[in-house]
Amino acid sequence: MGMRRGIIFVLSAPSGAGKTTLTREAIERIADLEPSVSITTRAPRKGETGGVDYHFVSDDEFRRLVANHELAETAAVFDAWYGTPRQPLERALVEGRDVLLDIDVNGAREIARLYGHDVVRVFVMPPSFAELEARLRKRGTEDEAAVKRRLEQARAEYSAYPEYDYLIINSDRAAAVEKLKAVVEAERLKVDRLSKGFAPWN
Amino acid sequence: MGMRRGIIFVLSAPSGAGKTTLTREAIERIADLEPSVSITTRAPRKGETGGVDYHFVSDDEFRRLVANHELAETAAVFDAWYGTPRQPLERALVEGRDVLLDIDVNGAREIARLYGHDVVRVFVMPPSFAELEARLRKRGTEDEAAVKRRLEQARAEYSAYPEYDYLIINSDRAAAVEKLKAVVEAERLKVDRLSKGFAPWN
Repeated sequence: MGMRRGIIFVLSAPSGAGKTTLTREAIERIADLEPSVSITTRAPRKGETGGVDYHFVSDDEFRRLVANHELAETAAVFDAWYGTPRQPLERALVEGRDVLLDIDVNGAREIARLYGHDVVRVFVMPPSFAELEARLRKRGTEDEAAVKRRLEQARAEYSAYPEYDYLIINSDRAAAVEKLKAVVEAERLKVDRLSKGFAPWN
Repeated sequence: MGMRRGIIFVLSAPSGAGKTTLTREAIERIADLEPSVSITTRAPRKGETGGVDYHFVSDDEFRRLVANHELAETAAVFDAWYGTPRQPLERALVEGRDVLLDIDVNGAREIARLYGHDVVRVFVMPPSFAELEARLRKRGTEDEAAVKRRLEQARAEYSAYPEYDYLIINSDRAAAVEKLKAVVEAERLKVDRLSKGFAPWN
């Protein structure tokens, strides 16, 4: 048995907060922090690898996993299902490894309900609503109605931040990664995460 | 009113854990972390400046401060009194500034009792009892009986670590400072430290 159990770090953010980039850089820059590989029913996009970016499964397989309680949380996004497999998470907890989950507010609630004290929730926010709007428009991939819809959705999601343990305001990407790194490193030092049998000296 | 109240970081360690050096380097390396200047009845040592290293006061003045409840905690060490003035601490809390206190286990209990949720307690430990013994002997300033007494005292003090929030095992000085920095930066991001009026967007 190691000195402590693993920790599940949950990162949530309204769309446009820069969460995807932050997650990728966090995995690169923070030692011993593993990504959680989600399951999805959508088709692989160009450049995506099964088992690395996602586990790609059929609708039937997804339903089977849900029925067997093998998913810790699920979400429906744009006609596809997404989910987080329980087994790798629970193995990481027991083996004292730390995992980073990039999920929405509802998923974060499910994970917190299932894994309680082993979960650390981090909310990422753009510095202002105006900045969020600018970021969404800069993408230029969506029409005005879609941008408006995303903005409304972001505002709703974002009202959930008080449920989280930490708030990172993402005005500068490198600074945001450093803040997440500090959260991960500090949580690893928490006395109440030490294993019961921990006896530093005798 | 700022975005949050200040935080009192309390650092305790058995003698020989490297606390004095760690405190000094933490103040140098961690942005916006201020030292607390203690009050003492002992005479200034060579190179010490009143108001910077300590506030040097007479026994009578110390007794007056205690009687007026102007000290947050006190400790008697080698025939001298030490104490932490309340006013600068409480002003820092209100003004949203963070303070580092280097005090013993009893002092840490007093500070936690007075300032509750505004206090973060960090315990620093040498990597092993053998290492502690080696460090104490390397100083070469004390006879065998004094080293033995310090070791026993350290063992007793050190059994208090479960009362603390964070545990830093000080095997490498630079790494220990980085860990303390992570604790300070993470605590500053805690959602439950945000001021009641905090409204990031509207």
